Amino acid sequence: MSALKTHPGNYFEDFSVGQVIEHATPRTITAGDTALYLALTGSRFVPGCAEPFAHSLGFPETPVDDWLVFHMVFGKTVPDISLNAVANLGYAAGRFLAPVYRGDTLSAVSEVIGLKENSNGETGTVHVRSIGQNQLGETVLDYVRWVMVRKRNKASPAPILNVPTLPDAVPVEALAVPDGLVLEAYDDARAGSPWRWGDYAVGEKIDHVDGVTVEEAEHQLATRLYQNTAKVHFNQYEQGQGRFGRRLIYGGHVISLARALSFNGLGNAFKIAGLNGGRHVAPCFAGDTVYAWSEVLAAEAMPGRVDLGALRLRTYAVKNRSAADFPGRIDDGYDPAVILELDYWVLMPR
Amino acid sequence: MSALKTHPGNYFEDFSVGQVIEHATPRTITAGDTALYLALTGSRFVPGCAEPFAHSLGFPETPVDDWLVFHMVFGKTVPDISLNAVANLGYAAGRFLAPVYRGDTLSAVSEVIGLKENSNGETGTVHVRSIGQNQLGETVLDYVRWVMVRKRNKASPAPILNVPTLPDAVPVEALAVPDGLVLEAYDDARAGSPWRWGDYAVGEKIDHVDGVTVEEAEHQLATRLYQNTAKVHFNQYEQGQGRFGRRLIYGGHVISLARALSFNGLGNAFKIAGLNGGRHVAPCFAGDTVYAWSEVLAAEAMPGRVDLGALRLRTYAVKNRSAADFPGRIDDGYDPAVILELDYWVLMPR
Amino acid sequence: MSALKTHPGNYFEDFSVGQVIEHATPRTITAGDTALYLALTGSRFVPGCAEPFAHSLGFPETPVDDWLVFHMVFGKTVPDISLNAVANLGYAAGRFLAPVYRGDTLSAVSEVIGLKENSNGETGTVHVRSIGQNQLGETVLDYVRWVMVRKRNKASPAPILNVPTLPDAVPVEALAVPDGLVLEAYDDARAGSPWRWGDYAVGEKIDHVDGVTVEEAEHQLATRLYQNTAKVHFNQYEQGQGRFGRRLIYGGHVISLARALSFNGLGNAFKIAGLNGGRHVAPCFAGDTVYAWSEVLAAEAMPGRVDLGALRLRTYAVKNRSAADFPGRIDDGYDPAVILELDYWVLMPR
Repeated sequence: MSALKTHPGNYFEDFSVGQVIEHATPRTITAGDTALYLALTGSRFVPGCAEPFAHSLGFPETPVDDWLVFHMVFGKTVPDISLNAVANLGYAAGRFLAPVYRGDTLSAVSEVIGLKENSNGETGTVHVRSIGQNQLGETVLDYVRWVMVRKRNKASPAPILNVPTLPDAVPVEALAVPDGLVLEAYDDARAGSPWRWGDYAVGEKIDHVDGVTVEEAEHQLATRLYQNTAKVHFNQYEQGQGRFGRRLIYGGHVISLARALSFNGLGNAFKIAGLNGGRHVAPCFAGDTVYAWSEVLAAEAMPGRVDLGALRLRTYAVKNRSAADFPGRIDDGYDPAVILELDYWVLMPR
Repeated sequence: MSALKTHPGNYFEDFSVGQVIEHATPRTITAGDTALYLALTGSRFVPGCAEPFAHSLGFPETPVDDWLVFHMVFGKTVPDISLNAVANLGYAAGRFLAPVYRGDTLSAVSEVIGLKENSNGETGTVHVRSIGQNQLGETVLDYVRWVMVRKRNKASPAPILNVPTLPDAVPVEALAVPDGLVLEAYDDARAGSPWRWGDYAVGEKIDHVDGVTVEEAEHQLATRLYQNTAKVHFNQYEQGQGRFGRRLIYGGHVISLARALSFNGLGNAFKIAGLNGGRHVAPCFAGDTVYAWSEVLAAEAMPGRVDLGALRLRTYAVKNRSAADFPGRIDDGYDPAVILELDYWVLMPR
Repeated sequence: MSALKTHPGNYFEDFSVGQVIEHATPRTITAGDTALYLALTGSRFVPGCAEPFAHSLGFPETPVDDWLVFHMVFGKTVPDISLNAVANLGYAAGRFLAPVYRGDTLSAVSEVIGLKENSNGETGTVHVRSIGQNQLGETVLDYVRWVMVRKRNKASPAPILNVPTLPDAVPVEALAVPDGLVLEAYDDARAGSPWRWGDYAVGEKIDHVDGVTVEEAEHQLATRLYQNTAKVHFNQYEQGQGRFGRRLIYGGHVISLARALSFNGLGNAFKIAGLNGGRHVAPCFAGDTVYAWSEVLAAEAMPGRVDLGALRLRTYAVKNRSAADFPGRIDDGYDPAVILELDYWVLMPR
C-alpha cells in the first residue's frame, strides 16, 4: 500500500510561528464569477455593475467586488488553515489594496503569527496573516484571522504562548485608495443614493430594512465558487448527526448578504477599504432570513483628498426578525438574533 | 439624528403624470449573466447559444436573450415604481428594438403616463412607460406597464384621472428587425425545428409538452441577477406571515420558463419582437411545476422582407397540470391552473 | 389543424444502424459556463482554474473542464437519442481529444452503431457513437453509449440484431495528449497535491473522504446548463406520480461530483483522457450525500513522454455513507450504496 494520498488538513501541532504556507489553487476571476456573485448576493453597488460608471471613476474596468476577492482568498486558506477548525474566531488588520479586475488571477499565502493552546489541552488558537496576490505579485488583500483548531493528540506538548498584538482598527492613513480614482463625475442618481459621506453622523444607526432568506443551494454554490472546502457547509449526512443537525452556512456568505442589504442606506459606500474586526456570533442555517443594520463608528476625511471620505461602520446581521430596533450587544453578549458583528471601513464620495 | 437614509419606495401620492424617473444601477451584461440565464431557464433558441449561428444571421455577436434584457430593465424600475405595489397589472406597447450584446450596459428611465385612484381610496393605478437604453443611448426596449400602488395616506386627495389609451397590439410595421439580419444560411437542423413561419396557421394551438418545477433558490437567483428588489420574492420570514405564507415568484421568471418551454413547438421563433399584453393571472410558488401552451393569434409577413415573418402568439403558463388540453380563459376568468397569459410577437424565418 | 409542431423524441423503431443524426443547438462555451460549473461541482483541478498555470503547461488558455465538455455534447444528443429512454446503460470507447477553450462552439453528431430488441418486445437497446466537434470541425470528444429505448408499438418487427464489439478499455496509445503540453514548470504546491504518477500503485484504493449533499436547484441548474432536456430531471409533478416519486438527478452530475471529490487524493490528475466504461448503478436524488473512492486499475507511461503518465481509475460514487471502507461490487452486484461505477483514464505528471 502506498502512502495516504488524501490531505487530512493541519492540526494544532502542525503550526509553528513564522511558518509560511503557500496555498493551492490560484484562481482567475471571470465574468462568470462576478455574475454568479451578484445573483447569489443581490449586490447593487454600481462600480461593480456598470463598466461606464467604473470608467467614470477612473477604474480601467469594472472592479471585482471586494468581498468576492476576500472570499476567494479566504477559500484558498481553508484546506491548510481551518479544515480541522472548531470555529473561526475573529478578523483584524484587514486591508483591501490593489483593485482586482476580471482576468486577474488570485493566489494566497499565509504566515502563522500566533499560537495559544487552550487550557483543555484539546484545541488551540492559531493566528494567521493571509495575503492575496494577483498575477503580478501585487498584494490585493492582507488580513489576520484566528481560528480554534483541534489538536491531533491531547498529549502533545503546548507550544510557546505567542499571541500577536493586533490593532483595534486599521488607521485611516493605512487605507488604500484605488490608483487614479476620480469622483468628479460620480452620479448619485445612477448610483442609487443621494447620501454622501458628509451626510452621515458618527453614532447614526441605519436599518437596512430588507430581509433575505437563504437556501441550501445558494450558500453551497457560493462557497464552492470560492473553493472553500470546509466540510460543515456541504455534508448533510454528517452534519445531520452533529450538534446542529444542519449544514452551517459559510460566515462569509452572511457578510456578503449584509453588505448587499446595506445598499439600502449606504448606496454610495462604493468600496470596502478595511476590515477592523468581525465575529460570527451565531450560526446561520438554510431557511433563515437575514436582516442587517449598521452604526457609523467614525467618519474620517481621506488624507490628501477633498473628494473622498471613509466611514467606519459596525454592521450587525440578525436572523428571523427585523433589524428596525437595532439588535446588537446586550450586557456581555448579544441579542439572540445576532449572527454577525462586522467592523470595517468603507469609502464614499464627499 | 440625521435624515433617514433608507429608500422607502414611492407611494401613489409620489407620482405625477409627466414625471420622469432615471433609475439607478446601470448594468453591463456579461457572459456570466447569459450563462446563468440559460441555466435558470433552459432556453435553447440558438442565436443566443452559438456564436457561429449568430454570425450566420448577420449578428456581430451572440445577442442577449430578449427576456433577459426585459428583466434587467424591469428590475431597475422596481425600487422606484413598484416597491410598494400591490400587484403588477399589465403590459402593453412593448417593443424590443436594438439587439443587446455582452459588454453592453443597460440603463432604464420611466415616465409616468397615467394615474387612477381606486375607489377604496387606499390604492391607485400608476401607468409608466419604461425605456431601456444601451451605453450609446440607443433604445433597446420600450414598454408600458401599470401597477397598483399603495397610498401613503388614505386622506390624500386623488389626482386628476388620467388613463392612457393603449393599443391592443403593436402593429407589425412597428416591430424592429435587427440591422443586417439575413436568413439565407438559417439552418433548421442546428436550430432544432423543421417548422418555419409558413407552417403555422392562425388559430393553431401548440402544447409545449414539458413541465419544469421551480425551486426557491432558482427564482431567487434569477430575480437577484436582474437586481429586482421586490421584497415578496426573497423574505420568507415576512411572507410566511402574509396572505400566501410563501415567497412569490417573480412573474418574469414564469415568462422566461414559458418561453424556454415554447422551444418545443416554436424552435425557430428566434426573436421576441413585441409585447402586446400580459397578465400574471395567479401566483407561482416554489415547488410548482410550470407547463405552457401557445395559440397563434396572427401571422404577418414582415414588411419589405420575403425571408421573415412574424407570429403573434398568446402563450399560457399553467401550473401542476399538463397543458395538453389547452387550459386558458373560461367565461370571464381563467382555468384555475393558469398563472400567465402573454400576448407577444415573435420573428421566424419564412 | 397543422402538423404537430412538437418533437416527440425518437422511439426504438426510428433508429437504424448507420443512421447519422446531426443534433441541434450548437453552443459557445463562455466564462459563465465554466464559473457555474465550478460553483455546481466544487472542482479544483488547477489548469481549469488559473490562466497562468494553464499557460505554464503550454495551454494557450485555461482549458474547459473535460466533463463539462462531455455534458455539453451529451446534452445535445438527448432530444434525439434518449428522450424516450428507459435507462442509460453504459459508455465505452470514450476519448477526450482536442482541448476546448472558452469561445469555442461545440456541436454534436451521432451515428447509430447497434440495435437489439429486448425479449419483452416493448423496448430495445440502441448503441450510438457520438462525436463533439468545435467550430473548426475538430473532434473534441468521441464516445459510445447505449440506452434502452421504448418502442412506439409493441407489434413493430424487430430489427436485425446488431451489437457492436466494444473495447474493455481505450488503449493508452489511443489517448490524446494536448498539443504543446509541457510539464517542466508544473507546480505541485499550487496544484494542491504532492503525489505524482509514480507515487500511485496498481491496486491502490483511495478514499476521497468528503461528502457533498445535492440540492434540487443544483442539479437542475447543471442539467439545464448542458441543455439536457430529459424530463425525469425537471418535472416533480410527473415524477411525483412515478416509480420513485422524485426527480432523478442526471447521472452526469454524479460523475462531476465524484470527479470534484477525487481532487482529495488525485489532485494532480489534471486531465481526463479516456472513458472506458461506466454504469449508473442506482439513482441519486436531491438530499442525498455523495461520497467517492477510487481504485488504480493500471498505470501506464504515456508513449514517447518521460514527463507524463496515465492512470486507469475505477471510481465509485456512493450515497449516504462514507466511502472509507471502499464499498463497490459484491458478488454479482453492488453494495446498495453504490450509485456510480466509472472506469476512465487520467493524465498525471511524472
